[in-house]
Amino acid sequence: MPKHLVSINDLSKASIEKIFDLADKIDEKLQKKEPIDLCKDKIMATMFYEPSTRTRMSFESAMYRLGGKVISSADTKSTSSAAKGESLIDTIKVIQHYADLVILRHFNDGSAKLAAENSLVPIISGGDGSHEHPTQTLCDLYTLRREKGKIKGLNIALCGDLRYGRTVHSLVYGLAKFGATIFTVAPDDFALPEHVERRLKLAYNTEVKKFKKFDEHLSATDVLFMKNLKKSKGAKEELISENLFQPIPIEYFDAIYVTRIQMERIEGTKSRHESLMSYLVNKELLEKAKNDTIVLHPLPRRSELSYDIDKDKRAAYFKQAAYGVPVRMALIAIMLGATDDNIKMNIEKSDDHFLEDKCSNHNCITQEEENVQHKFDKVEGADNTYRCYYCDLEKIVKV
Amino acid sequence: MPKHLVSINDLSKASIEKIFDLADKIDEKLQKKEPIDLCKDKIMATMFYEPSTRTRMSFESAMYRLGGKVISSADTKSTSSAAKGESLIDTIKVIQHYADLVILRHFNDGSAKLAAENSLVPIISGGDGSHEHPTQTLCDLYTLRREKGKIKGLNIALCGDLRYGRTVHSLVYGLAKFGATIFTVAPDDFALPEHVERRLKLAYNTEVKKFKKFDEHLSATDVLFMKNLKKSKGAKEELISENLFQPIPIEYFDAIYVTRIQMERIEGTKSRHESLMSYLVNKELLEKAKNDTIVLHPLPRRSELSYDIDKDKRAAYFKQAAYGVPVRMALIAIMLGATDDNIKMNIEKSDDHFLEDKCSNHNCITQEEENVQHKFDKVEGADNTYRCYYCDLEKIVKV
Amino acid sequence: MPKHLVSINDLSKASIEKIFDLADKIDEKLQKKEPIDLCKDKIMATMFYEPSTRTRMSFESAMYRLGGKVISSADTKSTSSAAKGESLIDTIKVIQHYADLVILRHFNDGSAKLAAENSLVPIISGGDGSHEHPTQTLCDLYTLRREKGKIKGLNIALCGDLRYGRTVHSLVYGLAKFGATIFTVAPDDFALPEHVERRLKLAYNTEVKKFKKFDEHLSATDVLFMKNLKKSKGAKEELISENLFQPIPIEYFDAIYVTRIQMERIEGTKSRHESLMSYLVNKELLEKAKNDTIVLHPLPRRSELSYDIDKDKRAAYFKQAAYGVPVRMALIAIMLGATDDNIKMNIEKSDDHFLEDKCSNHNCITQEEENVQHKFDKVEGADNTYRCYYCDLEKIVKV
Repeated sequence: MPKHLVSINDLSKASIEKIFDLADKIDEKLQKKEPIDLCKDKIMATMFYEPSTRTRMSFESAMYRLGGKVISSADTKSTSSAAKGESLIDTIKVIQHYADLVILRHFNDGSAKLAAENSLVPIISGGDGSHEHPTQTLCDLYTLRREKGKIKGLNIALCGDLRYGRTVHSLVYGLAKFGATIFTVAPDDFALPEHVERRLKLAYNTEVKKFKKFDEHLSATDVLFMKNLKKSKGAKEELISENLFQPIPIEYFDAIYVTRIQMERIEGTKSRHESLMSYLVNKELLEKAKNDTIVLHPLPRRSELSYDIDKDKRAAYFKQAAYGVPVRMALIAIMLGATDDNIKMNIEKSDDHFLEDKCSNHNCITQEEENVQHKFDKVEGADNTYRCYYCDLEKIVKV
Repeated sequence: MPKHLVSINDLSKASIEKIFDLADKIDEKLQKKEPIDLCKDKIMATMFYEPSTRTRMSFESAMYRLGGKVISSADTKSTSSAAKGESLIDTIKVIQHYADLVILRHFNDGSAKLAAENSLVPIISGGDGSHEHPTQTLCDLYTLRREKGKIKGLNIALCGDLRYGRTVHSLVYGLAKFGATIFTVAPDDFALPEHVERRLKLAYNTEVKKFKKFDEHLSATDVLFMKNLKKSKGAKEELISENLFQPIPIEYFDAIYVTRIQMERIEGTKSRHESLMSYLVNKELLEKAKNDTIVLHPLPRRSELSYDIDKDKRAAYFKQAAYGVPVRMALIAIMLGATDDNIKMNIEKSDDHFLEDKCSNHNCITQEEENVQHKFDKVEGADNTYRCYYCDLEKIVKV
Repeated sequence: MPKHLVSINDLSKASIEKIFDLADKIDEKLQKKEPIDLCKDKIMATMFYEPSTRTRMSFESAMYRLGGKVISSADTKSTSSAAKGESLIDTIKVIQHYADLVILRHFNDGSAKLAAENSLVPIISGGDGSHEHPTQTLCDLYTLRREKGKIKGLNIALCGDLRYGRTVHSLVYGLAKFGATIFTVAPDDFALPEHVERRLKLAYNTEVKKFKKFDEHLSATDVLFMKNLKKSKGAKEELISENLFQPIPIEYFDAIYVTRIQMERIEGTKSRHESLMSYLVNKELLEKAKNDTIVLHPLPRRSELSYDIDKDKRAAYFKQAAYGVPVRMALIAIMLGATDDNIKMNIEKSDDHFLEDKCSNHNCITQEEENVQHKFDKVEGADNTYRCYYCDLEKIVKV
């Protein structure tokens, strides 16, 4: 059975730490310009059905820095047989004979898991629809570890479009694994999907603290005063349960993770423009932040992250993109068995509940691909609720 | 003079066998993961004016496995100077200085031959319009040789769209060279082009047996009874000449070669949908087939080849795609002179008949390219008939 | 500070000669098939926002011939995050961590300079809008040096679309550096932009001799008779100042540099079609040219350069394309510090005049990119005139 990485949930905290330790060693060698030939004679295929700069280019750079080769398909949707209607499964069943490892970016949620199920060689997801983007999460977590020294106990604000941005859907599980405290700062329209929240609770026993906007006029002290916030561990939960305190002071956070606004969903209505402004991260906002707070963004950015903070030493988003190379080098080397690190990296097994209906997510790969069984897993602690094995969307089945 | 491969007709049976012997040796090394550095320091260019998965990716994989380098143009039509109106000849005259070998896929029939005429480095056709796809044929023949042990004497059914699918237009000549018996199973609208049939007869003394559909209710025994089919060699010909027996039992074949239905030409009319169903290859049909019959398909597939036979051991189409790597490695190595195999691999010389008119094939490269002489070859055994030197379409000239 | 090449003006004559000397040595090795591993373990990124055959493919070929690796983006505009609205600056700030060198082709004038300003790794322009194409100029000058033995003192005719064709906007400065005499042969609509002419005068003390068409009926002797053209050095200037003599004999030139007609700007009006015919270079025209006159063209060509001279030994345009490999190899090697040649290769420093208005060139990168300061340099010898730091367009500021 090959290793695959289609969800951050496939990796234990210990496994992630092993990847990061190797990335540290590799980065040291990169800095010294020492050659790293761990994957000589190996071929990686990049199959990108959607545009990409960072993910494809950093994976290809990583493979070359490891001494390997790359067959590249930057626009698989229109330049491969997908243009003639070939199914994803068929494409994978062919490509597995041409490459030792496949990096897949695909527009359908759950596509990476379907590909992995059908592949003899390792599949790494480079993003599947609005679902997950596990290697981005590895870069995000690695940046936190490098820049803050640890992840456990950090107060992390996630802001922007948390509904459609797939990077956050992977990141929250990663943060939960490492014991960070997760705050979301987003208008209701762009809140984290419910099924993600539920999974955080059930699988990681973690609750997200939800806010609508930052407030640079409030200081953390105000909050302490108002809510007696840090009095005890239990007190933190009040913040949400009472739901009285909607803006949150920027001063409160160790890291602010901003995500791209999907402009196409925002333009047109005034109220949405106002939503947009509520989580704008700029110089003015940062003035109230701590000296060692870092700002992250998976990039590309639009107006949600102002250029006026680029030279601020707390702006860590270009470093975050740069770490993509050592992190992905470590990941590739481990997945191709080129190191002694024996990391468990398997897709969660399904309970194999076969429901009559398809998944209700219109963007799920099971809607697109003809020959797929509609597998679901029973969600623990929720009656009659099943989770799509591919895209993770939950479904309540009438009895 | 460089070697070129633009038509399967350029290769003798002996040459093809040498390529396959080398592919066997290479595949053995690949299985053992032994390095094969036959083409170190060589550069291959892939110029693809049309989408491709298997052809481009397997050629690139092959070149890397040989230790070479690749400059890749996956969408030459819109990302090269072709977008600014550059002629194919000019593009080739430039690229020949950047690469040691060019793989060309182009939408016009005859484009590969025109490119070869104008190139100082070897050109391999990766498919030219609806004309030919010689390296696909090499993979097809190699699969037959590997899976069936031989090609001579096999009963091969070709079914699907035999009119527009270029793979079949190369394959029939290859099968004829090796002495297989060729059956076609296709509705009239999708029959093999006449000029292909005529060439088979004139150049290879081979006749195709034509049927409209498979009949899983008939067994080979029925046929023997009805038509006394196998009584003598001569008897086979009755089958066609009498034209009484239109469905043919699946049990009769050693290999079934299915091709993709060009959906865009089929949708809309009921009768055509019925045509479609007539050569559907699925589990039900295979039940009547022999235990060692193999099913081939150049891929991508649509509904003509059902997913329900993928796990049947007779389904050989993914193997066929996999063999693309060793076969193309052998071909590249030979064409770059990296082995001792001294294979004749030259384009047939033209008689150089220059007719006043252009070729009548609207998709012929001579219709597109401005500065091409309209060369034709006289067709032996047919009065006043000339064959376009580039696309092979025949033309009767009024005297 | 990394080296960059965004304008031919960044290179002194001595630097260009060093590059050419290295290209000569490299070409000798290429001919002998000796390995040249100057850039082993280096990665070059090709970021092409516009179509390209020669530039991208010859750069990639060059990097492979140097032993390096390539991450390739042949259609950056639609397959990178540019499709999601990422700014050029952000893309460069990311890519610089994935590659040791970036080749950039972009549709906006001045984009290369903006990229260079924001990059930690060397940027080489592969063409920026209608602005410049410095490596094409290096190939052009190298071809002149190789084919004519020298550049100084040659009479060079530039003909075709001199207004929009960026290659000429770089070439004239290069020719001026080397002391060639520059003639332009173009209808008024396609004349060299004024700001280019002015810069030639101010920075290189060079004046262009302007003609509207070739005249194959006139011989150089006629001209000598009519204008006493070659009597003295000073006499040459008459030619323009009097502006009486509009057609110029082809016999007069050592090299004819033809450029592509932008068909989209020509079709429709009869007068423009006539313009077009006025600088058609074909067999008939060449009959009057000298035996050792060479014809150059940056390619791709359309009808301005007839196929009927391709076999004429004076046709040097495919050689010119071929020289792209050794010239670009030399350039890459020098820019990556892989040789002892210590060539100054820096962008001219700006005077940093920040005007209130944007640049008036609608295609300038400063019109597209949001976070750019509108820098201008004062133009010497012209009152109240400022030159856009990025695209070089001049602007007169009202006082």
